[in-house]
Amino acid sequence: MLGTGAASGAGAVPAATTGKRSAPAREVPVSVTMRALRVLEAFTPDAPVRTLTALARHTGLPLTTTHRLVGELTRWGALERDGGGSYRIGLRLWEIASLAPRGLGLRELALPQLSDLVHVTGENAQLAVREGLSVVFVERLAGRGAVPVLTRVAGRFALMPTGVGRVLLAYAPPEVQEQVLAGPPARCTEATVCDPSLLRQLLAEVRRTGVAVCERQVTLDSVSVAAPVYGPRGDVVAAVSVVAHAGAVQPHTLVPLVQVAARGISRSLGAEPASVS
Amino acid sequence: MLGTGAASGAGAVPAATTGKRSAPAREVPVSVTMRALRVLEAFTPDAPVRTLTALARHTGLPLTTTHRLVGELTRWGALERDGGGSYRIGLRLWEIASLAPRGLGLRELALPQLSDLVHVTGENAQLAVREGLSVVFVERLAGRGAVPVLTRVAGRFALMPTGVGRVLLAYAPPEVQEQVLAGPPARCTEATVCDPSLLRQLLAEVRRTGVAVCERQVTLDSVSVAAPVYGPRGDVVAAVSVVAHAGAVQPHTLVPLVQVAARGISRSLGAEPASVS
Repeated sequence: MLGTGAASGAGAVPAATTGKRSAPAREVPVSVTMRALRVLEAFTPDAPVRTLTALARHTGLPLTTTHRLVGELTRWGALERDGGGSYRIGLRLWEIASLAPRGLGLRELALPQLSDLVHVTGENAQLAVREGLSVVFVERLAGRGAVPVLTRVAGRFALMPTGVGRVLLAYAPPEVQEQVLAGPPARCTEATVCDPSLLRQLLAEVRRTGVAVCERQVTLDSVSVAAPVYGPRGDVVAAVSVVAHAGAVQPHTLVPLVQVAARGISRSLGAEPASVS
Repeated sequence: MLGTGAASGAGAVPAATTGKRSAPAREVPVSVTMRALRVLEAFTPDAPVRTLTALARHTGLPLTTTHRLVGELTRWGALERDGGGSYRIGLRLWEIASLAPRGLGLRELALPQLSDLVHVTGENAQLAVREGLSVVFVERLAGRGAVPVLTRVAGRFALMPTGVGRVLLAYAPPEVQEQVLAGPPARCTEATVCDPSLLRQLLAEVRRTGVAVCERQVTLDSVSVAAPVYGPRGDVVAAVSVVAHAGAVQPHTLVPLVQVAARGISRSLGAEPASVS
């Protein structure tokens, strides 16, 4: 990785004074760039609108520094001020961030196959990538009678219980798998598999069959069938799934459908036929 | 606006040496935050992948400074390095930018109505907002037999010739309208209206009828019918359109369809019934 250990315009971050943020053991120098990124980090799905005071508290920076930083970000368009004087993420940041190849770019390529899955099943079609130890949903389309799901586009979830996440974990480097298996299990329902040795077998089964079937693992009324999407270098770069009503559908009938969709998306990404088969 | 004139960690931007970027008349101080934002700006739909050298050239910063800045942005996840050592926009930036209320948030609220428009017409449904003197497309869905359009999600276009853009301009502050009318016309086809006094009349007609019909203004085979979307404060915050094959459909038959969709989206946004009618 680039520039390891290089700090630009480093300053100290004062310890948070509110108790809402765990104070660092000692003050560490933080670059100006990092401060700006911390302002952006303060915006979350649960807190998409933030006051200047809240941003100062979150970043641990003095109010005057935060004021200046937020002013710069707002003038550029990374933030927008609403009528009440609070801040939100700006449209210009969204425009540039939409160039992320694993975000909107992937979604645009996969949209025809996802639409077909929804059209044919009337259920949910999902597309996701792995980011660290989480699955990030790049797209979710829902048919009229689709089973309710917890998924949010651009939202994160645990890898193991979701179909797409289990596929992504099965093809992840062994050290990532070990890290997930060593961590606390993501128990969502009474049916969620949490035993590490059983989970290890399930991951091996995904690699053997090229498909993951997760029944009642996230919600008690849903079943997810997922398959890997390959990139041009033959590695698994994403996963696609159908999430349907558990009990109402035989999961194995969804397998060929999801596999065909995954192959179609892989081809759109430029995967070699050999790696897709 | 906040923090006007405040510059943090100001330094000088060297004039570009490649001739690809117009050199500033004199060197102006640029804050570290602004430098980081300039790195992000270097990524465009035409150049979504950038080498370190290209980033240094684009930002006008020395290679060592760019190296350090890019390293920080990569470690945080605003950029990602690909196999060949080039950089792309990172998934983490996309995750946070997806919180922009005028981006993905608006798209999620409008998705049912857009899907309905595509389902009923078999053509394109578009959702857009105004950013300065441009229209930015927040979503585009296309039916199986849809007319080809130039639209790209998160892409920009001129306001006047597009249906959604003309609606947004008609309800924009007068000074924005005058700025567009005073500028060079966006001529896309031989049919594009470019006469300022005629354009002024067309904008007045949009306000009178609550709908814009743009026939063969962007491409010779398309017609766009658009209507305004209202926000909770009664102001126009977006526009929705159907873009169909010109000649194959009577535009006036699309008007009620688009208006019903616009009203539905306005209600989802919390608009008062009075402002929607």
